[in-house]
Amino acid sequence: MKVSVLFSSGKDSSLAALLLEPFFQVELVTINFGISPTHEFAAESASKLGFPHSVLTLPSSHIEEAASLVVEDGSPGRAINYLHQQALEAVCSQSSCRAVADGTRRDDRVPLLSMPHVQSLEDRHNTMYMRPLFGYGRSAIDALVRQHLKVVQAQSDTVDKADYEAELRAFIRKQYNEGESIVVRSFPEHIQSHVINRIYP
Amino acid sequence: MKVSVLFSSGKDSSLAALLLEPFFQVELVTINFGISPTHEFAAESASKLGFPHSVLTLPSSHIEEAASLVVEDGSPGRAINYLHQQALEAVCSQSSCRAVADGTRRDDRVPLLSMPHVQSLEDRHNTMYMRPLFGYGRSAIDALVRQHLKVVQAQSDTVDKADYEAELRAFIRKQYNEGESIVVRSFPEHIQSHVINRIYP
Repeated sequence: MKVSVLFSSGKDSSLAALLLEPFFQVELVTINFGISPTHEFAAESASKLGFPHSVLTLPSSHIEEAASLVVEDGSPGRAINYLHQQALEAVCSQSSCRAVADGTRRDDRVPLLSMPHVQSLEDRHNTMYMRPLFGYGRSAIDALVRQHLKVVQAQSDTVDKADYEAELRAFIRKQYNEGESIVVRSFPEHIQSHVINRIYP
Repeated sequence: MKVSVLFSSGKDSSLAALLLEPFFQVELVTINFGISPTHEFAAESASKLGFPHSVLTLPSSHIEEAASLVVEDGSPGRAINYLHQQALEAVCSQSSCRAVADGTRRDDRVPLLSMPHVQSLEDRHNTMYMRPLFGYGRSAIDALVRQHLKVVQAQSDTVDKADYEAELRAFIRKQYNEGESIVVRSFPEHIQSHVINRIYP
């Protein structure tokens, strides 16, 4: 069975693809909202990992809406959740999609779908939503990543990665007065990861 | 890394072992409370699946306590949860245990550990608790089972399987006045599965 895995080139979505690989026909999908070409980094990582990869372009109006949530909340949580939901809906709406997966972990708070939302997604699209990392805690995931992936880590604003945050930051910087200070204020600094290859045994 | 997988010979714990197999050194562990030799069926299934298997015998006082919960509640949910917790604690207490896993699914209500309980288990034993099926819904799991496992299915009281319910039923039948009618009243009939082999590609 074919599974479309939402892919940012971060270690979580990369590991999700690796866990699915022995059991499904994995295809990576990177979402882009037309703000900055972050999908190019993802395409490179996908090629190194050896999976087919495609880019799904969604309307920039989603980023506009998400940016207004960031400004309203002073933090990116609700905006990231909103964008992830749009991404899942879009992938599931493709006629060829029987199953969709992401890199959501047990300890994640954002993005995270509630159980009623998961059921609704699966029922409306007659699809399967898979979270291969959802049964694992941080230390198990760290161990799997160390064993299987070559990763570059750095502060979230300096890593080339196709996550929602990158385009969201770029949009706010460009479109808002004092965009830079909104970004600095609203996005907590954290370590981001970008996968550059597998560790082949 | 070695992972001890709680194994009943049912399809969930069997599939959990299969999903872990490409990434960990899987060892199956069947719990027995000394009431009936249900672990013998599990040993046979484990051998067919090709995994090392051991039996961990726990005090029958746990079944006694669980039986009183069944009688008190008129249903087996709390008792099964209690036995599963005792099983996880016992496996994690083994000095060789670095990681423990089970076949808990996303849609399971019983047995199910709360998140604080999961954290407590991992912290107290300095171990990793893994639920490989936790990110999958029923239809995805059914598809994986169909593809990888040979399964016998029947009403829960007629399947040879090393789950908590089998010994719990046997204990209540033997030790309680009108044990048979307590069992009939308290355990809802449902389809149980017993794995007899892999489907080799």
